[in-house]
Amino acid sequence: MNHFADCLLDAIERKGAPICVGIDPVFSKLPEELRETNTPLESIRAFCVEVMRAVAEHAPIVKFQSACFERYHAPGVVLLDDLMRVAHELELLVILDAKRGDIGSSASHYAAATLARADATTINAWCGADGIAPFLEAAAEAGRGLFAWVRASNPSSDAFQGLTLQDGRTVSEALAQIVAESGAATDCIGQSGYSLLGAVVGATKPSDAVRLRDMMPQQIFLVPGFGAQGGTAEDVRACFKPDGTGALVTASRSITYAFAKSDAEDWREPIAAAAADMAQQIRAILD
Amino acid sequence: MNHFADCLLDAIERKGAPICVGIDPVFSKLPEELRETNTPLESIRAFCVEVMRAVAEHAPIVKFQSACFERYHAPGVVLLDDLMRVAHELELLVILDAKRGDIGSSASHYAAATLARADATTINAWCGADGIAPFLEAAAEAGRGLFAWVRASNPSSDAFQGLTLQDGRTVSEALAQIVAESGAATDCIGQSGYSLLGAVVGATKPSDAVRLRDMMPQQIFLVPGFGAQGGTAEDVRACFKPDGTGALVTASRSITYAFAKSDAEDWREPIAAAAADMAQQIRAILD
Repeated sequence: MNHFADCLLDAIERKGAPICVGIDPVFSKLPEELRETNTPLESIRAFCVEVMRAVAEHAPIVKFQSACFERYHAPGVVLLDDLMRVAHELELLVILDAKRGDIGSSASHYAAATLARADATTINAWCGADGIAPFLEAAAEAGRGLFAWVRASNPSSDAFQGLTLQDGRTVSEALAQIVAESGAATDCIGQSGYSLLGAVVGATKPSDAVRLRDMMPQQIFLVPGFGAQGGTAEDVRACFKPDGTGALVTASRSITYAFAKSDAEDWREPIAAAAADMAQQIRAILD
Repeated sequence: MNHFADCLLDAIERKGAPICVGIDPVFSKLPEELRETNTPLESIRAFCVEVMRAVAEHAPIVKFQSACFERYHAPGVVLLDDLMRVAHELELLVILDAKRGDIGSSASHYAAATLARADATTINAWCGADGIAPFLEAAAEAGRGLFAWVRASNPSSDAFQGLTLQDGRTVSEALAQIVAESGAATDCIGQSGYSLLGAVVGATKPSDAVRLRDMMPQQIFLVPGFGAQGGTAEDVRACFKPDGTGALVTASRSITYAFAKSDAEDWREPIAAAAADMAQQIRAILD
């Protein structure tokens, strides 16, 4: 069976850059030509398909923001499922950004829900190792991946995740250790040496990233915050290992809504160009 | 417009006990007569409706575990919506236990998704005040409630949420303070003095509950862990204020699967009896 980390590293190698395009569709922000003639969900479908076609050459993987689909209830869930199928047809891997987390059997149900079609899902490990274990079991059995949300990229997360414990670690670092230990089980490690359990590590805190990289040697980092959230290529460098592996940088609005700041006649062109540009920027810091 | 905390306190007064019945339906655990003749979702629907009828006399509110429905994808989401409607027909308030959490606009989308029909939803505040604010805004506008997951009832949560910070607080207590401050905004406080933002506080840690009760004077506590998870009436006492308000004790498996340990001919009878018994136990500690 395939191992998620191995598949991801292969795909990064093939496409030439460790980048992920985050797809967070909001009807009011879509190109006018799509909004004019369609229902919101039809517009969102057309937009997401065109975004994926535009970026498939540059990105090995896309990340769907589950909330943007869930707000449309069952029809949104059907659409999300359909779009994950389209992604696979375009030979894109898929992360479902669902950040689910609960204890015991509820976590197992969430794993079944989120890993049915996605190659990986984000999880919220607030309740500790017990909350990670059911996801790990399901992911190992299905050849899927997980990214535990260790460090957020939003301003106020510092006031909680950045607090210092008596032993000198931050709250995020304590969670990082639990993630590293949970993901170290033999059946979680691929041929690449990376675990199927990765970590979401916000790119707006480069000093934190250095420590988190040391604490989680087997975790692939999913690094949000590049682009619209203010992170730069320099900021994300610390998330990579010296050999240039170990991180996947993700950007959403700066890629998918690139047309809003462009005069191009075809709204798809600025999207493809933004993905190509991001790939180029990340490659440059890894050289 | 109604305020969630005021509505909940009224409903508790009317039914006579601050208890909530958690509905976490798993097909394989349902009564045989339901499983024999129906599809899984038909069986789950019939089961949930009968559970609500059996407990409606004793409980002011039910809590649906979203994961149990999400694992059936879009048809599960449709069923969940339908069951929330049935709950309201039976004059039961509804908490959707979805534990969603994300930053910025994603949190707004989750608020729209979860608060469309439920009277309240559980949230995961791992990313701090930024992650709570969009839910608060949506809930205040719609007259809904929230319960932030401050303290889990599972064994391994101690190893993370129970860690001590340099200032002497635990990780959970630091989050409690953020919750207390977030929920103190004027438009969040009802006539009862309680905020629309409550807190989930596991019942298996009574010593923690005393401190959390002090730190969150305006939060109604949703207290899981009673019954199947080992919590007793004594354990939950610390979650209430001296006047007997301020907490809602919730039990799931010990109520809804009570028939599995019973010889009763009608599987609904042990469920009603278990709810009545729980109401009696909680009333006893408040006298």
